[in-house]
Amino acid sequence: MATGRRPGRPRGRRREEILDTALEVFAEGGFHGTSLAGVAERCGLTQQGLLHYFPTKQALLVAVLARRDELDAARFTRDGREETVLSEAAALAEHNQAVPGLVKAYSVLAAESTTEGHPAADHFRRRFAAVRSRFAADLTAEYGGTLPSGVRAEDAAALVAAVMDGLQLQWLHAPDEIDMPALVTAFTRVLEAGQAPPAPAAAPPPPER
Amino acid sequence: MATGRRPGRPRGRRREEILDTALEVFAEGGFHGTSLAGVAERCGLTQQGLLHYFPTKQALLVAVLARRDELDAARFTRDGREETVLSEAAALAEHNQAVPGLVKAYSVLAAESTTEGHPAADHFRRRFAAVRSRFAADLTAEYGGTLPSGVRAEDAAALVAAVMDGLQLQWLHAPDEIDMPALVTAFTRVLEAGQAPPAPAAAPPPPER
Repeated sequence: MATGRRPGRPRGRRREEILDTALEVFAEGGFHGTSLAGVAERCGLTQQGLLHYFPTKQALLVAVLARRDELDAARFTRDGREETVLSEAAALAEHNQAVPGLVKAYSVLAAESTTEGHPAADHFRRRFAAVRSRFAADLTAEYGGTLPSGVRAEDAAALVAAVMDGLQLQWLHAPDEIDMPALVTAFTRVLEAGQAPPAPAAAPPPPER
Repeated sequence: MATGRRPGRPRGRRREEILDTALEVFAEGGFHGTSLAGVAERCGLTQQGLLHYFPTKQALLVAVLARRDELDAARFTRDGREETVLSEAAALAEHNQAVPGLVKAYSVLAAESTTEGHPAADHFRRRFAAVRSRFAADLTAEYGGTLPSGVRAEDAAALVAAVMDGLQLQWLHAPDEIDMPALVTAFTRVLEAGQAPPAPAAAPPPPER
């Protein structure tokens, strides 16, 4: 699997180690507050050594985000899973509580990349759209276009993604006060709960913009 | 009201202008990526001129955040309002869609301040706790300890705050795809909707940590 160039430290493995370290460093300073020199130092490399793997800070950030997505995707293949789509959100929250460094890096970069000309802006715009679209499709496959609560599948997808991100922020600031899996579960149970759907909730008015 | 020192430009008003500009600059670069020189330049001041108002970058950030809270608080006095507690969340989302610069600054700083030793960490930890506590108290006054949906008031408070923050992030990345007030309304209607509360949703198990 590895295409090792140096004995005892295959190149692919070293690259992953650099990405994991860079993710931590980006989490601390954001893209703007992070220097290649700082990442290199933390990796025990010279700046030239780091540039050998990633030619620019931007290339490094993009690789870092792609690696995070790979790790997430590997965890979220639905093959052979018995959970409902919504219970997977709680499972993800449970997992996230074990990897605060990753959650922090994600939160900082997702927010920082809302600013003009940020190199990860495109990554996050596409990522959010993909998350909503895939999740809405899964919900539609399970419930049809409208959940038992009367919330449309596509609205539920945006709301679940929002709850996850927003709870992460509160949890990062107060890990002892916020129980993410319990709160996500309380939320998804309400979305799944059957009731006569009040008409306005089932079809909120289209945006006037 | 103003204690003007220069003709035509009262000191208090100038201070507010600096804070509003600084909020934009912090939104673009975060705390770590922003320099006092950059803020001064955008304000049309020398760095010495800016230091006259705010002695350090940290003092400036804290004042910026306090100003944002003042503006929010002024908008959210409940006196004489007829909305329910939950419909106010949609009203806030509606308002936020008109001030993307403020929302961006809030999102970037709230996330960046989750990192070790950030000067706004304490501000946001206290702010989130205060938001949850005040909102839970309002919900309890309106519904008792448990909402009609079976969700506990304190859980609903954390969830509404999370949905607002998470939707802001998606909206900042794709303003044309995310209708914040409609989504917040879809969410709060489900929280308010009456149903036989399933026992686990009414009282999620305590965290095992």
